[in-house]
Amino acid sequence: MDTRDLIANDLFAKHCGIELVAVSKGAATAKMDIRPHHLNGVGIVQGGVLYTLADLALAAASNSHGITAVSLTSVITYFKAESSGTLYAEAKELSLHRRVATYQVDITNQQNEPVAVFQGTVYRKA
Amino acid sequence: MDTRDLIANDLFAKHCGIELVAVSKGAATAKMDIRPHHLNGVGIVQGGVLYTLADLALAAASNSHGITAVSLTSVITYFKAESSGTLYAEAKELSLHRRVATYQVDITNQQNEPVAVFQGTVYRKA
Amino acid sequence: MDTRDLIANDLFAKHCGIELVAVSKGAATAKMDIRPHHLNGVGIVQGGVLYTLADLALAAASNSHGITAVSLTSVITYFKAESSGTLYAEAKELSLHRRVATYQVDITNQQNEPVAVFQGTVYRKA
Amino acid sequence: MDTRDLIANDLFAKHCGIELVAVSKGAATAKMDIRPHHLNGVGIVQGGVLYTLADLALAAASNSHGITAVSLTSVITYFKAESSGTLYAEAKELSLHRRVATYQVDITNQQNEPVAVFQGTVYRKA
Repeated sequence: MDTRDLIANDLFAKHCGIELVAVSKGAATAKMDIRPHHLNGVGIVQGGVLYTLADLALAAASNSHGITAVSLTSVITYFKAESSGTLYAEAKELSLHRRVATYQVDITNQQNEPVAVFQGTVYRKA
Repeated sequence: MDTRDLIANDLFAKHCGIELVAVSKGAATAKMDIRPHHLNGVGIVQGGVLYTLADLALAAASNSHGITAVSLTSVITYFKAESSGTLYAEAKELSLHRRVATYQVDITNQQNEPVAVFQGTVYRKA
Repeated sequence: MDTRDLIANDLFAKHCGIELVAVSKGAATAKMDIRPHHLNGVGIVQGGVLYTLADLALAAASNSHGITAVSLTSVITYFKAESSGTLYAEAKELSLHRRVATYQVDITNQQNEPVAVFQGTVYRKA
Repeated sequence: MDTRDLIANDLFAKHCGIELVAVSKGAATAKMDIRPHHLNGVGIVQGGVLYTLADLALAAASNSHGITAVSLTSVITYFKAESSGTLYAEAKELSLHRRVATYQVDITNQQNEPVAVFQGTVYRKA
């Protein structure tokens, strides 16, 4: 499947209001406008929202080589709480092997300040 | 704020259809019925959904001591793809210090099979 | 290669004074007596020592099925500082697939108190 | 304690042949010549060696602000197996808060190829 179609068919990303901005071999950018339903019980963007935004960028970048890639494990570290504006997730490839690849995703806000960093390792199917 | 109120006010968890089942000192269980809007482009539950489910259990468990706890970093490792049924996330405390605590969250399906494992470390505010 | 031989040939583990105590399908235990050269600049066991102890238990457990397994990624979370006595690392299998497997390793002290927790994902070669 | 003294007193780093090359506010570089006792049972540098090298760079960078910093959790992802030559670990600060800070450490070989990436979060004592 084409990467853009794969992402367009991601119903949860759609449910969250996340969109793919750009994709190229091993890289991708996603964005999301913060809305009230993204907030947690203390009024800041829920960790799962940041994770999902980064995960979509990871999915686009890791599937960009024409081989289906599925997540094995991912880690996210939070730097800054946000409650409004637009968030961006930019994925880049750290390592690409035949069966395994690793990506870093930087999550930033509208002022280009770091909000969180995400790192994910995927398995590439035959 | 009471832990149950904190979780009840989590608009993103509500948006995802996640509910808190149980909470006690250092432990919590959340559940979610898989619905079409939880699926990704290849028809399985999106990683961000599993993460959000686990994160809610973490939030409940880590805030159960009456001190506000915020996530520093979390890691999730996927074992099994799911596309229907109910998912459960059960958080338990691995370590509790004055300022920092760590939790493990086991994500399982209706057959009690492991779907993913999540580990999160939080910072406890004064 | 037999798992015990693989571990016996691990020169760095030997250099660190780590020994394999037990190994079975998907599980292993390693131990190490804390000695002055294991300490860091503030007089507690260096993080790299705890990591290496856990990594040896992971290597033994993940290679116990007769298929060569190499580490993809591992995470360690520290709970308690130690400066003397014996440390134990006990690895158990969380998930086993054809190409990928995940292990948890609990690191404890002589009083069986949790010192750190380690989680590692490996790639299994043909 | 001065950062250089702290690192000079790290007996395990010394035992491993790791040395601090440079340190500045929020950054540090460590290096190590690969020797036979750094290898594992299949003849490549043991994961614990790479972890310890990165951890020393993290310790130097995170203690560079004059406040004692201790590791909470760290993750390492392996890209390439090495068995000879010199390895470098370069730590940079991703985030610095009053109590918590996060660092990324890039591990490279003599040809400046990526060998592994390490990310660590520390707690800063009063």
